[in-house]
Amino acid sequence: MDILSIVGIILAFAAVLGGNFIEGGHFSALFNLPAGMIVIGGTLGAAILHTARPSVMRAVKIVLWVFRPPPQNIEETANKILHWSLTARKEGLLGLELIAEEEKEYFAQKGLRLLVDGTEPEAIRSVMEVDLFLIESRDLKAARFFECMGGYAPTIGIIGAVMGLIHVMRNLADPEQLGSGIATAFVATIYGVGLANLLFLPIANKLKSIVQLQYQHNEMLLEGVTAIAEGENPRSIEIKLQGYLEHN
Amino acid sequence: MDILSIVGIILAFAAVLGGNFIEGGHFSALFNLPAGMIVIGGTLGAAILHTARPSVMRAVKIVLWVFRPPPQNIEETANKILHWSLTARKEGLLGLELIAEEEKEYFAQKGLRLLVDGTEPEAIRSVMEVDLFLIESRDLKAARFFECMGGYAPTIGIIGAVMGLIHVMRNLADPEQLGSGIATAFVATIYGVGLANLLFLPIANKLKSIVQLQYQHNEMLLEGVTAIAEGENPRSIEIKLQGYLEHN
Amino acid sequence: MDILSIVGIILAFAAVLGGNFIEGGHFSALFNLPAGMIVIGGTLGAAILHTARPSVMRAVKIVLWVFRPPPQNIEETANKILHWSLTARKEGLLGLELIAEEEKEYFAQKGLRLLVDGTEPEAIRSVMEVDLFLIESRDLKAARFFECMGGYAPTIGIIGAVMGLIHVMRNLADPEQLGSGIATAFVATIYGVGLANLLFLPIANKLKSIVQLQYQHNEMLLEGVTAIAEGENPRSIEIKLQGYLEHN
Amino acid sequence: MDILSIVGIILAFAAVLGGNFIEGGHFSALFNLPAGMIVIGGTLGAAILHTARPSVMRAVKIVLWVFRPPPQNIEETANKILHWSLTARKEGLLGLELIAEEEKEYFAQKGLRLLVDGTEPEAIRSVMEVDLFLIESRDLKAARFFECMGGYAPTIGIIGAVMGLIHVMRNLADPEQLGSGIATAFVATIYGVGLANLLFLPIANKLKSIVQLQYQHNEMLLEGVTAIAEGENPRSIEIKLQGYLEHN
Amino acid sequence: MDILSIVGIILAFAAVLGGNFIEGGHFSALFNLPAGMIVIGGTLGAAILHTARPSVMRAVKIVLWVFRPPPQNIEETANKILHWSLTARKEGLLGLELIAEEEKEYFAQKGLRLLVDGTEPEAIRSVMEVDLFLIESRDLKAARFFECMGGYAPTIGIIGAVMGLIHVMRNLADPEQLGSGIATAFVATIYGVGLANLLFLPIANKLKSIVQLQYQHNEMLLEGVTAIAEGENPRSIEIKLQGYLEHN
Repeated sequence: MDILSIVGIILAFAAVLGGNFIEGGHFSALFNLPAGMIVIGGTLGAAILHTARPSVMRAVKIVLWVFRPPPQNIEETANKILHWSLTARKEGLLGLELIAEEEKEYFAQKGLRLLVDGTEPEAIRSVMEVDLFLIESRDLKAARFFECMGGYAPTIGIIGAVMGLIHVMRNLADPEQLGSGIATAFVATIYGVGLANLLFLPIANKLKSIVQLQYQHNEMLLEGVTAIAEGENPRSIEIKLQGYLEHN
Repeated sequence: MDILSIVGIILAFAAVLGGNFIEGGHFSALFNLPAGMIVIGGTLGAAILHTARPSVMRAVKIVLWVFRPPPQNIEETANKILHWSLTARKEGLLGLELIAEEEKEYFAQKGLRLLVDGTEPEAIRSVMEVDLFLIESRDLKAARFFECMGGYAPTIGIIGAVMGLIHVMRNLADPEQLGSGIATAFVATIYGVGLANLLFLPIANKLKSIVQLQYQHNEMLLEGVTAIAEGENPRSIEIKLQGYLEHN
Repeated sequence: MDILSIVGIILAFAAVLGGNFIEGGHFSALFNLPAGMIVIGGTLGAAILHTARPSVMRAVKIVLWVFRPPPQNIEETANKILHWSLTARKEGLLGLELIAEEEKEYFAQKGLRLLVDGTEPEAIRSVMEVDLFLIESRDLKAARFFECMGGYAPTIGIIGAVMGLIHVMRNLADPEQLGSGIATAFVATIYGVGLANLLFLPIANKLKSIVQLQYQHNEMLLEGVTAIAEGENPRSIEIKLQGYLEHN
Repeated sequence: MDILSIVGIILAFAAVLGGNFIEGGHFSALFNLPAGMIVIGGTLGAAILHTARPSVMRAVKIVLWVFRPPPQNIEETANKILHWSLTARKEGLLGLELIAEEEKEYFAQKGLRLLVDGTEPEAIRSVMEVDLFLIESRDLKAARFFECMGGYAPTIGIIGAVMGLIHVMRNLADPEQLGSGIATAFVATIYGVGLANLLFLPIANKLKSIVQLQYQHNEMLLEGVTAIAEGENPRSIEIKLQGYLEHN
Repeated sequence: MDILSIVGIILAFAAVLGGNFIEGGHFSALFNLPAGMIVIGGTLGAAILHTARPSVMRAVKIVLWVFRPPPQNIEETANKILHWSLTARKEGLLGLELIAEEEKEYFAQKGLRLLVDGTEPEAIRSVMEVDLFLIESRDLKAARFFECMGGYAPTIGIIGAVMGLIHVMRNLADPEQLGSGIATAFVATIYGVGLANLLFLPIANKLKSIVQLQYQHNEMLLEGVTAIAEGENPRSIEIKLQGYLEHN
């Protein structure tokens, strides 16, 4: 559970709404169906037209990572790799067969299978590198779905605001209606700027950090598995993995 | 048929126009001939001056890819390549002659012809790599035609708006006319921001994704054809191609 | 003659001015000496201070390329290179002496001279590569002169507009004068945004495309001349050049 | 103590507040609780949601570097390295054991330990390079926490301003209240733009410079330690280190 | 003396002030102490906090290059290098000792000294390359001091403008004062946008061009000196240097 993400979202919305409340604003003034339709629908539509289908699907899947990041733990995985290298030293690569079957994580299992199959070290490296890159690129594209929503939302908020102003301008004679009409129009601006800056852009970036962490994690697996395939001794593998642990 | 593209366009316009309707706006208020002329004509003019001739032509050709992407299917092509490698193994490279003649796709046919001609593997790779790069660069430039329209439209919308405001300012004495005049002026803003964010920019990006996918597709063809030329066995070619399939 | 450039400029200005006319605006409202002085003088001044002297000079020279691009034709040049390779094969490199004297294009002549002098292939490549790069970099810097004018014009338009508004604010008591004064102020905005988006930025980009095309053209000459120096046979040179022809 | 940082902050705030004071503004007009809550809370919330947890923690730790930069002195370190190389020449690598124990700086100590352990030069280089890169990347991410606060603050200031305007629009009938209400709304704009441009963005960049300087410092340590491990003579090490000293 | 820089600055300010004058504006309306304090003080403060100390110092030193560029002349230096190569050929590298003592330019002298000391060609190249890079990076950072002032000035102008508006809003009842008050507020906008676009940004870029030219100049020295150390003959050195001369 990523508690900072939850703190961030609650803090941001509490501060904005609380500030408005103290100022004497009514929450009701911030709810406005047409503004919501224009900004949310328009942004979603533009983002769906913008993004390739697989990335939209993946974006829906990984958005919850923001609160519940994938359970990959760098230290745990380093211990796992060490354990594999000791097993391989004692029982040979075939000794990893059982471990491979029980391993649940996709990339770790793929590495173990390549080891058990007796694949050449360079072949393991090249197969796993392609995979590493494709996983990262797929997930970065999904994260960019939220980035592009963060880009479209404020401009579509402006469309909503200007549409509201047009509506208002037709009733200029009546200054009372003018004020409340402009207020309605401004809500679209708040929705656009607010959704982009309090939700879409921060979410996009948090997802990118997670994807990058996962890349490091998978890279460590790649280095570890290749080292086992090359028959490096467990002690030297341990030293290699330490670099990944120290500054995280 | 790329259904998500159609959903995106319909959702975006339905949301924006629907929100305006619920708010009590009249559609008629959004139609304005001078604003349309200024924004569409100005944007198109700037974009045509901006872009080299072949890219304008190509942009017109590939814009429909947004709804009907080129029928290249990564899995199908992988199967085709496997089939070629088996044929080459059984009947020699000359056995591909018939297949080459029937192949309709430009890049696949080029590869097959090079194989049938008995070209050296490195020569095949270098010829196809140049082609790969030139195709990608030509299509990216065409996609950028829409990106640059998305860049010019909002600023030209501002020109239209300010021109409208100038017109209005001349009749300041009459507050009724003032309101409807400002409304007219604001429509240009909506056209500029709306066209850019609901059409041009998303289309440009969707085209870029398609070009990138096509690049991967052609790269797979290049790798497959070179492997066949090098006499790799079909099983090892299959493993090589799997990387392209798994994360798409 | 680049007809699309002319179409683009005419279309853009016709659309913007035509839209203004249909709306009922007077052209006279768009002419304003102080606004013109501020925007054009200020932009030119900033751009001249911004840019190194040789690039300003070069920018003045190549701006007409937008309408009359340099007469380099990729196909023609490919034919020329083939002709040279046949001559060299028949009469030896010295047979190119006459052709070199008659060649008018700078880069082609340079290549021919290096051939006639019997320079080593690697030396030819390295001398021509430096030249290739320096020509491209010099012309790109000149194209960027217009890009930077496109960057300064809108902000200097804002300076003009705010100066106008200051002037107006001093006469707030008189609402008639207020309106016409604001109109005057807004013309500076139109000049700034319009010059940038209808002229400077598109011209900068069109020049960049031309520079890039010229780079490809010169690169083809470099490859052709080096291949002749290496004694490659004309048929294999022809195949090499085809990559440049196909996707242009 | 980085005196220029302190001068910069004091100068910026003194100029802005002093200018306001001379103009006749009351400081009280710049204090506004709701605006402060919205901008500071909203920006902090968005930045916390945006940034990965370790980078938030690190950002809190290193922000004081702006005033009290880490005490790494390039010249002092160069002298230290020279001293080590002389010691190693006289007493062998084991002679560095005592120095290693007394060394307080993390990276210098790590290098000395590797030397004392008799690690191979290439191994030292590769271990220290990974460390170098990880330290830099960790600290740059922390610096980017302030950059992203500098990005969010102005847009959240706009949210606060528009919320204030909505509040004001409801009381349009009363022109007195209108003025003071708009004033309140504008304070949020000042908070957003001011915090971003007078604090967050300059701090982010100052931290980046410090991280870069530290990188150079650690790189010098890496080069020095590797040279000692390779048994280079102290004089040649001195020449190598001079490059780092001359232009700093 | 860089006459174009002076022309640029005078043209820009003459156009903007002249336009304002023709429009009927009083210069007095553009002088405003509080606005000046806020924009200049705030921008300077932010830029000083933003930039590392050595770059601030260097920026102050090199800003005059805009009008009086360093006297490095590519052609002259090429002639000097040729002269050195002839001397070295006739009298040996030691013959350069006197020339080295009389050479005043830092980088040329450094190269000559390395030659006279009989340093190995590769060592000369590596020592001079480090220097080349460090000089360029130090001067680019100094140029970026003006770039960051160009970035902060407009936003701090907005702070000044909004502060002015707050002040004005408190006196809404009195329309006369309202107008002159808004005028005062707008001057801050002009100062911010004007300083950035007519001074800071163009100066930053002009400095960058000069730094780049100096880099080319020093690179030519590096190539020349290394070629002399390798004992290349003067004729072949001349051909090498020509590439630098032709397109400048």
